Amino acid sequence: MLPSLDARRRVEDKAARRPPTTATGVGMSFRRGIMTRSRASSPGALIAVDWGTTRLRAALLAADGGVLDETESGDGIGTLSGGHEAAFERLVGDWPKVPAIMAGMIGSRQGWREAPYVSCPATPAALAGGIIRFDTGAGRPVAIVPGIMLRSPDRDGDVIRGEETQIVGLIDRGGADGIVILPGTHSKWATIAGGAITGFHTFLTGEMFELLSRHSFLRHSVAVDGRDLSAVPDFTRAVRRTVEGGLPFLAAIFSVRARQLLDGVSREDNLAYLSGLVIGGEIAAARDAGAYKDGAPIRIVGAKSLARAYHKAFAAIGRSTEQVDGTEMVVAGLVHLARVIGLLPTEGTRS
Amino acid sequence: MLPSLDARRRVEDKAARRPPTTATGVGMSFRRGIMTRSRASSPGALIAVDWGTTRLRAALLAADGGVLDETESGDGIGTLSGGHEAAFERLVGDWPKVPAIMAGMIGSRQGWREAPYVSCPATPAALAGGIIRFDTGAGRPVAIVPGIMLRSPDRDGDVIRGEETQIVGLIDRGGADGIVILPGTHSKWATIAGGAITGFHTFLTGEMFELLSRHSFLRHSVAVDGRDLSAVPDFTRAVRRTVEGGLPFLAAIFSVRARQLLDGVSREDNLAYLSGLVIGGEIAAARDAGAYKDGAPIRIVGAKSLARAYHKAFAAIGRSTEQVDGTEMVVAGLVHLARVIGLLPTEGTRS
Repeated sequence: MLPSLDARRRVEDKAARRPPTTATGVGMSFRRGIMTRSRASSPGALIAVDWGTTRLRAALLAADGGVLDETESGDGIGTLSGGHEAAFERLVGDWPKVPAIMAGMIGSRQGWREAPYVSCPATPAALAGGIIRFDTGAGRPVAIVPGIMLRSPDRDGDVIRGEETQIVGLIDRGGADGIVILPGTHSKWATIAGGAITGFHTFLTGEMFELLSRHSFLRHSVAVDGRDLSAVPDFTRAVRRTVEGGLPFLAAIFSVRARQLLDGVSREDNLAYLSGLVIGGEIAAARDAGAYKDGAPIRIVGAKSLARAYHKAFAAIGRSTEQVDGTEMVVAGLVHLARVIGLLPTEGTRS
Repeated sequence: MLPSLDARRRVEDKAARRPPTTATGVGMSFRRGIMTRSRASSPGALIAVDWGTTRLRAALLAADGGVLDETESGDGIGTLSGGHEAAFERLVGDWPKVPAIMAGMIGSRQGWREAPYVSCPATPAALAGGIIRFDTGAGRPVAIVPGIMLRSPDRDGDVIRGEETQIVGLIDRGGADGIVILPGTHSKWATIAGGAITGFHTFLTGEMFELLSRHSFLRHSVAVDGRDLSAVPDFTRAVRRTVEGGLPFLAAIFSVRARQLLDGVSREDNLAYLSGLVIGGEIAAARDAGAYKDGAPIRIVGAKSLARAYHKAFAAIGRSTEQVDGTEMVVAGLVHLARVIGLLPTEGTRS
């Protein structure tokens, strides 16, 4: 993953034992040793893995999908050149030698084994059908979930790899029809209808915020960091200006500089304003690109702080949203897919 | 100046003797020793100066405004903390001790002396009225041109500092009514009516291109550099997609990655595509923000390669443009203002 929207929560150390929630909404925010008393005696049945560019996260699951233990390391695929099996075994060496199901960049061309994209519209069953399976050198069964690719006559293609698992988790819970937003470095907007992902759209929102606030000339006009940007009135103001006022993002961003020069706006307020411009810009662009229709239910899946910012942005324009925990959805999605391919007993058959 | 859209033409050395044209369209691209025979005997009457963040450029002018000699150094105001007089005298020490008129960031709060912004709408006369004048320690008269600020009920404020001089040059030439685009790191679109600058809008186009092509994850999907990006068909395709197709910039940029992943588009073609997205995004944003109306004449003032790219972008959507040399306009603007404030004889009175 590239630097995240919510940079203050980034994990800089290579193997934090209590990693913070990521801003991408993709990561599992696992804590070690959260085994509950009721499950302390459950044997592990499956390891659910979210293996991205910068981090490798794993959860040991019971046969009923309950989380027994969690761990993670900095062995993202961007830091490895080969050695995936060793990196994985290093991380989960203390756990039982059960099968693993993995999602994320681990299935890309640069990953362990490539799981080619399945086409959109895509059902969970189609995703399960695209899962590739192999045994490690040590004989552990591994399943890797594919991403989804989209072809559209109106624009160039688009791809999802990692976030699809959370959407499957949401579909598994039922009643997911509508819009699912997975905010982050590269925000994904997906349309769910009839239990399938019928379309999606990627926005570089988190990366744009990072580039502008830290690497552009605007860095002189904004604070390095802010506590809760979406609570600042200037956040709401920027959202309204872009979404309701219709001021295009590219026409709005220079104002961050002008506000400082002409109005003496503080760098803290200006950072919140810039955050509102990029999130509002994303919402306006999604609307204008047809990624959502008025009235469709909107679910925001991700880390709490980022989900709250999106929730507040929608509230500023009179739209209500439902916030869904991203960590739970990763596990729910991987459990669902593991059951479809027989890596876990189906719910009806579990003891 | 921050890194420019046309990065291959950037001047990296501190005091190039034959500097290339800058991509910002603001800089004067002077060459040393271009004294023509007919002017070889003219005494210098005025030094015209474009003093920006990264470079200090100066031209020695005859009383009729003709250029006698040119020079420049890397003593931009961003590299100085005080010592402006010494930096200037170091550069022009060989020239006669004539008055100087300066435009650019030298008049900002971080410059030599602040020339506060005048309000928009602004005429050349109003700009001349905002010029601040003082004598250096060595007794040389100096005039510094102010920038222009804009207040709008529809958006936050905007500022120009440097480019206004080129617009004055254009107005001085007559028939400038319409839109003037000064492409660059921070592109400016100005509306000219009745010999006044009635509005303007800043876009971070050049900086956005630099950030995305060199500092975002898209850097893996685009070439480091390209010869003539606007000649590549994918440039035109991207312009049409954003301007005619109406795909918002934020909704379009991830496709640079998808094109590489799904379509195997070359990094060279993808760089041209990204260039088309940012320039097309600027044009679409300018239109949507009301910065130009269909039918208004469009003049592009700036360095040739960048002006050509904008010309081709407009041609792709069926609009014709006129290209105006930025260097000439800087001198023409400073000469015009110098005459208004009496630093040079007016044209009617010169011998």
